[in-house]
Amino acid sequence: MATAPQATNATNRPPKRIFSTMIPFQQTDGLKAGIQLDIFTKIAEGANDAGSVAKAIGADQRGTRILCDYMAIAGFLTKDDDKYSLAPDSALFLNKQSPAYMGAMANFLGTRIHRENFGVLADAVRKGGCATDRGDNAEAHDDFWVPFARSMAGLATPSAEYIATVTSAAEAKPVKVLDIAAGHGMFGITIARRNPNAHVVALDWPAVLAVAEENAKKFGVADRVTSKPGSAFETDFGEGYDYILLTNILHHFDAAGCETLLRKVHKALKPGGKAITLEFVPNEDRVTPPVAAAFSIVMLANTDKGEAHTFAAYEQMTKNAGFAKSMLQQVPNMPQQLVISEK
Amino acid sequence: MATAPQATNATNRPPKRIFSTMIPFQQTDGLKAGIQLDIFTKIAEGANDAGSVAKAIGADQRGTRILCDYMAIAGFLTKDDDKYSLAPDSALFLNKQSPAYMGAMANFLGTRIHRENFGVLADAVRKGGCATDRGDNAEAHDDFWVPFARSMAGLATPSAEYIATVTSAAEAKPVKVLDIAAGHGMFGITIARRNPNAHVVALDWPAVLAVAEENAKKFGVADRVTSKPGSAFETDFGEGYDYILLTNILHHFDAAGCETLLRKVHKALKPGGKAITLEFVPNEDRVTPPVAAAFSIVMLANTDKGEAHTFAAYEQMTKNAGFAKSMLQQVPNMPQQLVISEK
Repeated sequence: MATAPQATNATNRPPKRIFSTMIPFQQTDGLKAGIQLDIFTKIAEGANDAGSVAKAIGADQRGTRILCDYMAIAGFLTKDDDKYSLAPDSALFLNKQSPAYMGAMANFLGTRIHRENFGVLADAVRKGGCATDRGDNAEAHDDFWVPFARSMAGLATPSAEYIATVTSAAEAKPVKVLDIAAGHGMFGITIARRNPNAHVVALDWPAVLAVAEENAKKFGVADRVTSKPGSAFETDFGEGYDYILLTNILHHFDAAGCETLLRKVHKALKPGGKAITLEFVPNEDRVTPPVAAAFSIVMLANTDKGEAHTFAAYEQMTKNAGFAKSMLQQVPNMPQQLVISEK
Repeated sequence: MATAPQATNATNRPPKRIFSTMIPFQQTDGLKAGIQLDIFTKIAEGANDAGSVAKAIGADQRGTRILCDYMAIAGFLTKDDDKYSLAPDSALFLNKQSPAYMGAMANFLGTRIHRENFGVLADAVRKGGCATDRGDNAEAHDDFWVPFARSMAGLATPSAEYIATVTSAAEAKPVKVLDIAAGHGMFGITIARRNPNAHVVALDWPAVLAVAEENAKKFGVADRVTSKPGSAFETDFGEGYDYILLTNILHHFDAAGCETLLRKVHKALKPGGKAITLEFVPNEDRVTPPVAAAFSIVMLANTDKGEAHTFAAYEQMTKNAGFAKSMLQQVPNMPQQLVISEK
């Protein structure tokens, strides 16, 4: 029940959490600007103070100093006596010369569409789903999904490698894989790279699939990656698959939507075949672990019915769809998990 | 110099900091939605699960559950067995029945103008200042400063009370105070409330000053708060002041701009009078403490020349403006400090 707030001197207490929640969108924009201006590569190449970084990126010195300081506050740089250095993760992921560079995601950071949908979050809560005219982001919005596919491949790498391991790619047995809502295609492509006898069917809307096709060429596996353009709900999957990948798709739907899709997946698998679902899976309390649990609000803002489902929910859905059993597996070092469901 | 990134297995390392920086604007929007929908008051009044909160606020139950969970993840609520309770700071600051309620600031959280200016942050770094057509926010933009004045009074309370103490308000000596860029007016008004013999002149643009006038009436000190409409740079201050307040204004300007203003302030003070500057004052390294240091990027995005100046910078400016000495004082429990400069 209601507790009467203590007013005596209470107004002098610090609203610290409120304060620190007021302006965090700046962190996203700061990192985005740092990547766009390529300060991390320039620092890796030897520019080490505001003056030399500003010269290297052709920007104002005061502005560069403020941005570099901000990146140091956020931990992406270290600062010692006016000299900046890269933090280890910036050296690895934000230096263009690094093979693990993931700066392409800058295009997607704080994307306008996400921001607009979050801008009317109270309306989304009232309605129970996306409250802008744009409507459900699970639909074929090329203006969102093509930049997503072009930007987010880098972040998918650790999960994609782990999924390849789960499919026993190193054993190089002939397998047939369906990658549903393939996006950048890297989940299926990574299996094809790790297993020379894997054949992958990548399914997505045509404009998005073009990105997956480019990546398949880039990684030398285009001859074993076949395109199947269309909606996951309407397109015939074919059959006889060893593995069907459902990466970051089920959170767009409610249990009924997931079950509809999982039934199609079940039908298209070989006996003993597996559906591999990559997801943010919160604990049953729905508030831990924080990154997985917080993903629900992203789906509330952006879709009609989506959220981050718990493992109990996935167990029920996969059971209803005909699967014999499902198990949960943490993706190492990542905030996501795999739900592996066997036919 | 450049260090070659280690590629072996490196791509499997977690880009945790990058991940967590991608989407923090959602925290701001989440809190804003929680305040707008008044979930904190409803929970204080007894609604304690998603169903009862949804009913109390007239919103969708699933949407309400996702928002309440998100507020629990962020620490504004606690969750125990599907029952939500208010965290202590939410009970104090976000429950409408609390005298310390500061929900009015929701109108200003993640305000469109800030977001647009941050949306072109790379351009602001290139240019060294605000890069939108809107231009320097230090100008008389009523569409920004009136909502600011209406929203941010609550957050000013702890600092305003502390400044009143610094002016020895409890001694009730007759003092003449000038509150420059008064905004909501609460800094001067709080002195007037704590010292019955204080007379305050509040200076700001006319539309903003109307908010200060409302607040002076609301707190019963309108007879001792006089309005002086106009720009701080162009309006004649008058003279003979005991205290001149410069609260959250100097960060909008570079050292030259601050000095121009400080010279006017010096001239308007009595001998022995004090300029009281409330500011985010980073250490000389400009990257600590984080909240104060990070304020520079807000000014880079929003103004032509502003930033969070260090105490050494303020010492130099006040000295150049004619002040005998300046001292730095932490505002208790707040991320801001006072620079107190004596004539």
